Amino acid sequence: MRPSGRNVSEMRPISIETGVTRHAEGSCLIKCGDTHVLCTATIDERVPPFLKNSGLGWVTAEYGMLPRATHTRMRREAKNGQSGRTQEIQRLIGRSLRAGIDRVALGERQIVVDCDVIQADGGTRCASITGGWVALKLAIAKLMKAGLITSDPMMENVAAVSCGIYAGQTVVDLDYAEDSEAGTDGNFVMTGSGKLIELQASAEGATFSRQQFNELLDLAEAGVAELVAAQNAAVA
Amino acid sequence: MRPSGRNVSEMRPISIETGVTRHAEGSCLIKCGDTHVLCTATIDERVPPFLKNSGLGWVTAEYGMLPRATHTRMRREAKNGQSGRTQEIQRLIGRSLRAGIDRVALGERQIVVDCDVIQADGGTRCASITGGWVALKLAIAKLMKAGLITSDPMMENVAAVSCGIYAGQTVVDLDYAEDSEAGTDGNFVMTGSGKLIELQASAEGATFSRQQFNELLDLAEAGVAELVAAQNAAVA
Amino acid sequence: MRPSGRNVSEMRPISIETGVTRHAEGSCLIKCGDTHVLCTATIDERVPPFLKNSGLGWVTAEYGMLPRATHTRMRREAKNGQSGRTQEIQRLIGRSLRAGIDRVALGERQIVVDCDVIQADGGTRCASITGGWVALKLAIAKLMKAGLITSDPMMENVAAVSCGIYAGQTVVDLDYAEDSEAGTDGNFVMTGSGKLIELQASAEGATFSRQQFNELLDLAEAGVAELVAAQNAAVA
Amino acid sequence: MRPSGRNVSEMRPISIETGVTRHAEGSCLIKCGDTHVLCTATIDERVPPFLKNSGLGWVTAEYGMLPRATHTRMRREAKNGQSGRTQEIQRLIGRSLRAGIDRVALGERQIVVDCDVIQADGGTRCASITGGWVALKLAIAKLMKAGLITSDPMMENVAAVSCGIYAGQTVVDLDYAEDSEAGTDGNFVMTGSGKLIELQASAEGATFSRQQFNELLDLAEAGVAELVAAQNAAVA
Amino acid sequence: MRPSGRNVSEMRPISIETGVTRHAEGSCLIKCGDTHVLCTATIDERVPPFLKNSGLGWVTAEYGMLPRATHTRMRREAKNGQSGRTQEIQRLIGRSLRAGIDRVALGERQIVVDCDVIQADGGTRCASITGGWVALKLAIAKLMKAGLITSDPMMENVAAVSCGIYAGQTVVDLDYAEDSEAGTDGNFVMTGSGKLIELQASAEGATFSRQQFNELLDLAEAGVAELVAAQNAAVA
Amino acid sequence: MRPSGRNVSEMRPISIETGVTRHAEGSCLIKCGDTHVLCTATIDERVPPFLKNSGLGWVTAEYGMLPRATHTRMRREAKNGQSGRTQEIQRLIGRSLRAGIDRVALGERQIVVDCDVIQADGGTRCASITGGWVALKLAIAKLMKAGLITSDPMMENVAAVSCGIYAGQTVVDLDYAEDSEAGTDGNFVMTGSGKLIELQASAEGATFSRQQFNELLDLAEAGVAELVAAQNAAVA
Repeated sequence: MRPSGRNVSEMRPISIETGVTRHAEGSCLIKCGDTHVLCTATIDERVPPFLKNSGLGWVTAEYGMLPRATHTRMRREAKNGQSGRTQEIQRLIGRSLRAGIDRVALGERQIVVDCDVIQADGGTRCASITGGWVALKLAIAKLMKAGLITSDPMMENVAAVSCGIYAGQTVVDLDYAEDSEAGTDGNFVMTGSGKLIELQASAEGATFSRQQFNELLDLAEAGVAELVAAQNAAVA
Repeated sequence: MRPSGRNVSEMRPISIETGVTRHAEGSCLIKCGDTHVLCTATIDERVPPFLKNSGLGWVTAEYGMLPRATHTRMRREAKNGQSGRTQEIQRLIGRSLRAGIDRVALGERQIVVDCDVIQADGGTRCASITGGWVALKLAIAKLMKAGLITSDPMMENVAAVSCGIYAGQTVVDLDYAEDSEAGTDGNFVMTGSGKLIELQASAEGATFSRQQFNELLDLAEAGVAELVAAQNAAVA
Repeated sequence: MRPSGRNVSEMRPISIETGVTRHAEGSCLIKCGDTHVLCTATIDERVPPFLKNSGLGWVTAEYGMLPRATHTRMRREAKNGQSGRTQEIQRLIGRSLRAGIDRVALGERQIVVDCDVIQADGGTRCASITGGWVALKLAIAKLMKAGLITSDPMMENVAAVSCGIYAGQTVVDLDYAEDSEAGTDGNFVMTGSGKLIELQASAEGATFSRQQFNELLDLAEAGVAELVAAQNAAVA
Repeated sequence: MRPSGRNVSEMRPISIETGVTRHAEGSCLIKCGDTHVLCTATIDERVPPFLKNSGLGWVTAEYGMLPRATHTRMRREAKNGQSGRTQEIQRLIGRSLRAGIDRVALGERQIVVDCDVIQADGGTRCASITGGWVALKLAIAKLMKAGLITSDPMMENVAAVSCGIYAGQTVVDLDYAEDSEAGTDGNFVMTGSGKLIELQASAEGATFSRQQFNELLDLAEAGVAELVAAQNAAVA
Repeated sequence: MRPSGRNVSEMRPISIETGVTRHAEGSCLIKCGDTHVLCTATIDERVPPFLKNSGLGWVTAEYGMLPRATHTRMRREAKNGQSGRTQEIQRLIGRSLRAGIDRVALGERQIVVDCDVIQADGGTRCASITGGWVALKLAIAKLMKAGLITSDPMMENVAAVSCGIYAGQTVVDLDYAEDSEAGTDGNFVMTGSGKLIELQASAEGATFSRQQFNELLDLAEAGVAELVAAQNAAVA
Repeated sequence: MRPSGRNVSEMRPISIETGVTRHAEGSCLIKCGDTHVLCTATIDERVPPFLKNSGLGWVTAEYGMLPRATHTRMRREAKNGQSGRTQEIQRLIGRSLRAGIDRVALGERQIVVDCDVIQADGGTRCASITGGWVALKLAIAKLMKAGLITSDPMMENVAAVSCGIYAGQTVVDLDYAEDSEAGTDGNFVMTGSGKLIELQASAEGATFSRQQFNELLDLAEAGVAELVAAQNAAVA
């Protein structure tokens, strides 16, 4: 039995509200149950130095958490610098979003996607990827509407869900109560057509079998399909 | 003529929504026009070292801004550490809120008020003080309801507004368009009964007269009264 | 009764010795009672990047304190980086000095004013502004003598004094014994002709009335006049 | 065709030399082709604060690379602090080694495994895990020999190999020439009996299918078996 | 011919003024020609952790330079942290002063000697040692007068001078004009009775012979004797 | 009697193995008894900014120690930044190596010598200089072979040895057991022809006489001669 009463393959309610901030070129507030992430996309006409004169675009991401997004207040990262965990997460978000983009079509410009967790209840990196894609899509739509881009660089939806082994059962979309107890948990980033972008599965003080991993992947495929539907509804 | 069309003594629309995050002991989202600040109050049963065994409580504040809260994206402070400006603002917020608190009645515990700017359009430090007071009030109400505090430590409302000289006129509640052009601007922190907690007025590349300063103070008194009414409505 | 025996409107003895270091373009050692600050002005023919090709000059300031300038030794800032307080003070000094300068007449060059506290007894930021103006004046005199500047960019004297409420009385030019006990204290930066550049008044664990603030401003006006006379004598 | 001429399932030559440094409680130099990592294990009788009085042991790891371990010299991390990549790698090594340890049997002590890359040619994090296990085993053998531990906490071998998709083919044990060109690559950490500890597979600017991922996992299982045999020979 | 017109064995004028700051337990302003260093000694009743309950005292030193102590303004160290050069100098000063102290007689307390260069013209580390000894002596005299120390821990004077090879000649007490051109220069720290504490001689882009080194040492012995006489006169 | 049983003028066994890493332009592993240092030389065709268009070359060095090179594990410098001691050592290595180089013949390029201590038993900075010279020689030989340099910039061998006063006796090439007990110890850097580059001798809690210093220098001259012979054999 899951703490939330959900069955093993049941996702939390998904809500994606777009256009939530006045300044960003694209933005949304994604809610996966009690995990709320504000995603904004900023268009920067300059690319990083390693892409100067390459004709290729770039998408990068930054991730943060408000100090009281969590049950217990966390120290503000601006006081000590970004932790290794934060850097690992934001590299994952950036890598994932780039997999859905045609960087030639984007042209030599950069889009910075900021994912700031307003409230956390597990799965913040996955929600950031799913919401980040929406913000990115909206910013690019603006570029296309302005005629700055002619061929759509958005090749496919990109979305992510966590799955894990909780109380011996493989379950989808872990909330914090599950995540903190799970022996094995993983993050699965996929495209709208079900191709894989990134898989991470990790056991802490435990191991898992190949059979169990396959079950996690089955759950993730179904979960991502629900997220992709929500993305498409939001940007329609 | 003000860019927003307001007259010189007209405040922006004020909205204070409470209970906006699940984990914090007190919280609100304050909107002063297009300036939106999320304020949370966290109760910490430990005080800073210099107050150990003093019997006195403490209120402190931290301030941050999401990278794309502003028109142009700002560098994330977690990457370089807090700027001097950020530290100056959060010391001001903490000092202001402490002025409205009876630290003996609070007892030997600390309340940390986090003010995170979600969207900025001028006056973020004043909105943080005004909204921070609401979050603080709600957290203390929780302590009183739980019987952990018996005598109410909230002595008076604390609220703040900016005033300045724009296009030669003294005006209240500057938005970004005014703030970036004003020769003189100031922040005025007051209590519900009109007592002064902190005055700051500063000219950049200009000077101002004592007469002008008195006009700014008149405007501030009226503006703070409106903010205090909105605070009281929010926590009623 | 003030700890020093001074009456409420009595300034500490002021001494300004010029030409105290061999290398700086302008320098002075200012003593306000037991507060001693060494001020040097350095001419830099390059302006900060945001002023390149603007034709405008810049004045900036840095502030420091020797570790044993204070009663108890303080940690050396070179070990941990400048505190927020230090940064706040040096921005105040720079802003204040710029208010007395015609940046067009100065031409596209920068003057860096360093204010280093050799011995502290309250009011170090005010002494830094008052002494910093003298160092700046001397450096600019050198530029004018060399024919590098033709029209004098020094528009007005700039000086500063602290005032506060000590033991219920409004007093001028607080020393450390008063400053550490005052419920309200403020810094008042003015020009030689009495115009206001910056006002800061702050209560710690207290409040003050508009009437009290007006008394502080009266005291400050008289105090600044004495400081301006001392500046003029020093640079005569 | 692989740059090295290996066939798709062919590992690089593995060599593990033990006892290579005089001071460490356990040590080895592992060579996977031209990737050479010096692994040392240090016994520390104190555990991290969160384990005080828990009766549980801890294994942690740190990772570094000599500046000229790589083809082009890299900036020394002691000059800028550890990168996010380094922190991510050392957390992976620690997590992996802990999966093979009975922390109750280890008792309340910590073992720190340092993995320093002397020469790099791809796969340094996997070689660090495989070699780190050997250093850990030797340090624990010393504790057992000294009678400080009575029941062997080493439950299973832990080893790791990278696999990826190079030139359209799934291949095992990527060297640098392959790693820098691979569209998809992953790290697979397993136990001696074939259980999974951590899977990571990531596409940069590409995607992969579930079928391809299964082929990578098949290759990894065979590769890890070879590494485990080499570990056992080294500590025999 | 030396730039200053001095002959090869001629020291710069030495002046040591004591009691120059109000708060420090011991202080002096030492002038070696145009090199001016303010030295203060602070008594701290706590020793560093490694000496807790050892019965032994400690003397340590810190060194700094005002930004405009030099011909060209230097970046303030509080902005970037202490350079390696600064740390090397302050370790030298501390080591040198400890050589003249009986740490048992001092008792379990620490004395911190701060040496801040007000104006620089070569030889600042040597002036810091010579002046630091005077500040230390005065602070210890205070402890003895108060009866906190009964047996004098000051065993011998400690003083230092630089010597080098300038324009092919061995010269004593290099000023900046010589120091910046010298192929070889060194610092010689000695006791009042001529014993050696520390020798450093270094060639930049050159070498020197054992014969030349002996000449430098002869010059240093005579120079230190002059410095010791000045120390004794100052503390008499 | 020395702990190792060596007589006072007996060096530890010296071994210098060249070509130990695949990527560096020059490399060696130097062993002075149980002190083992890996030295690599990297050719960089860009010089530091202060040498742009000067026609002069540069040699610089960096120094590090693996965390478990020592008896007790040391904190990894990548975690806290380089200590002042590390910076002092690497400046010494760079200065020493530059003394043996004709910077005009080298041409406008930089060689970076990395010295990483794999195992420490005293004298690591001296071994770094001696081994660093070998790596530098090999890198330059490569440049000459490639015809990029026509006149050999290696003017003389550069090598270093430590000497000190242990148990009242002057001894050469201190190991850790001696170094940690010695009242006086020093480092002597010389050329192949016996010229002096750098002398450092320092007493901790003690002093030494000129006679003793001369004995140390005699020992150093003989020791360096042995090291130079080993260098020449290695690069032959």
